[in-house]
Amino acid sequence: MSVRLLAVFGVGIVDPATPVVAADDPGLTRGDGCFEGCRVRTSADGHSAVDKLDAHLARMGRSAAALEIAFDDDAWRAFVLQTLAAWTEPGEWAMKLLLTRGAPGGAPTGLLTISPLPANYPAQRRDGIAVITLPRGYAADAFADAPWLLGGVKTLSYAVNMAAQREAARREADDVIFTSSEGLVLEAPTSSVVWLSGGTLHTTPQGPSGILGGTTQALLFECAAAAGRPVVTAPATVADLHAADSLWLIGSVRGPVDVVRLDGKPRGRDEARTAEIRALCGF
Amino acid sequence: MSVRLLAVFGVGIVDPATPVVAADDPGLTRGDGCFEGCRVRTSADGHSAVDKLDAHLARMGRSAAALEIAFDDDAWRAFVLQTLAAWTEPGEWAMKLLLTRGAPGGAPTGLLTISPLPANYPAQRRDGIAVITLPRGYAADAFADAPWLLGGVKTLSYAVNMAAQREAARREADDVIFTSSEGLVLEAPTSSVVWLSGGTLHTTPQGPSGILGGTTQALLFECAAAAGRPVVTAPATVADLHAADSLWLIGSVRGPVDVVRLDGKPRGRDEARTAEIRALCGF
Repeated sequence: MSVRLLAVFGVGIVDPATPVVAADDPGLTRGDGCFEGCRVRTSADGHSAVDKLDAHLARMGRSAAALEIAFDDDAWRAFVLQTLAAWTEPGEWAMKLLLTRGAPGGAPTGLLTISPLPANYPAQRRDGIAVITLPRGYAADAFADAPWLLGGVKTLSYAVNMAAQREAARREADDVIFTSSEGLVLEAPTSSVVWLSGGTLHTTPQGPSGILGGTTQALLFECAAAAGRPVVTAPATVADLHAADSLWLIGSVRGPVDVVRLDGKPRGRDEARTAEIRALCGF
Repeated sequence: MSVRLLAVFGVGIVDPATPVVAADDPGLTRGDGCFEGCRVRTSADGHSAVDKLDAHLARMGRSAAALEIAFDDDAWRAFVLQTLAAWTEPGEWAMKLLLTRGAPGGAPTGLLTISPLPANYPAQRRDGIAVITLPRGYAADAFADAPWLLGGVKTLSYAVNMAAQREAARREADDVIFTSSEGLVLEAPTSSVVWLSGGTLHTTPQGPSGILGGTTQALLFECAAAAGRPVVTAPATVADLHAADSLWLIGSVRGPVDVVRLDGKPRGRDEARTAEIRALCGF
């Protein structure tokens, strides 16, 4: 059991080994719910804080609204903060917030877990990652005027994202960048794609592409722009990524990680630049 | 709680109100697992039997293999039959088999539930259903050579399928037929599309389209062909469906239901023909 702390919305902290989800919860049977993955840092004196909690709760509210599941931002904020007050083990942790439609006739299911970082994150942050590109099967405008496709919604239905990461492992890579059927860059299964080209930070557009707005990418772009570095959101091809000066996958828990091999082709590293990017978004 | 009987693979029957899934089970957190929905009939003397259990276990084995989750057909067959021996309440029931990757470091999670039929099924079987077509966002060949997209795999990641059915309800319809980006007919969120045209039964092709092979559609086509009725699997447009003599959605628990309105346009009904189709696949 990797979960170190488990809390149930409306109940409070329970033994982390306790099964807490019913067999007919649509979160389980249909992947019908949403989640957030957040980074928690706990100081030497046992005070825990969540990175950009506002942004995570705001996105969870948007996901829940798209799924028509009730979500009370204030109540969730209180739930998170009350739970975290009980978490005092110094270090860096992965916190997951999870909301499902709940079993038929009942209330939504809300869960909070705190777990150690995945074991490979320290090495990936230090050494970078090898990434392959894989088609996601959609055209870059497939989500326009089609809200039932849940573009930009962080649902629990991540089976394809996980299968793509297994495909990467089969090809001796660490992660994936999805491309549209036209060959445009979309997103990674659990992170955003950001690159530096000619001094400008780039990422891919949301909306019709269906990609999820990354909270760490948004923070990075806000801070980079404030620091005088130009940022742009625009469509790009895989060739643009190969030509970029630096390329990162950026997620809330892993932070920015340097892509050092793309589709088998080694990329040069600029560790000072990655350190700058990491610092800009709090890593 | 709609579940009337709950059994856990490797454990046996437990109280149906028992939460049985851990907060970090990837079946919950990632929709990373597969399932089958089956029809159970229990006779007046309390003997329960599953429709086409072989076909359901075979498909679950294919789904599990695609997801690289261990699945033992013999052990699951024994689990299903032992559990069903304890279910003696006469009537027609929905049985769900559910397999997840299981919490990190542990074994896969296997569950079996028996629940009443959804409340609207008797009326839908009798009166037919109103259906809308919605784009699924994929081209009809998007799944060719892309196994990570999990075409034809009955995963737990059904959030889009559920959102599409909510969209149908918003438009005062009962269900959905998904179309490809070229306008070709795919499948329904939880059933197959079958129609009769010029005396021939039609359905849509699997493989590159990513659609799931329906066990009831397969049984229907096998029995129809044996009874001398021609069957064909070929691409079709929504116009072909409008022009068809009869149109059904066909699933394992609901059985064949007559589409009496398609995209707002009423369709004539031939109840004798629907009765023939129902009888051919055991309804």
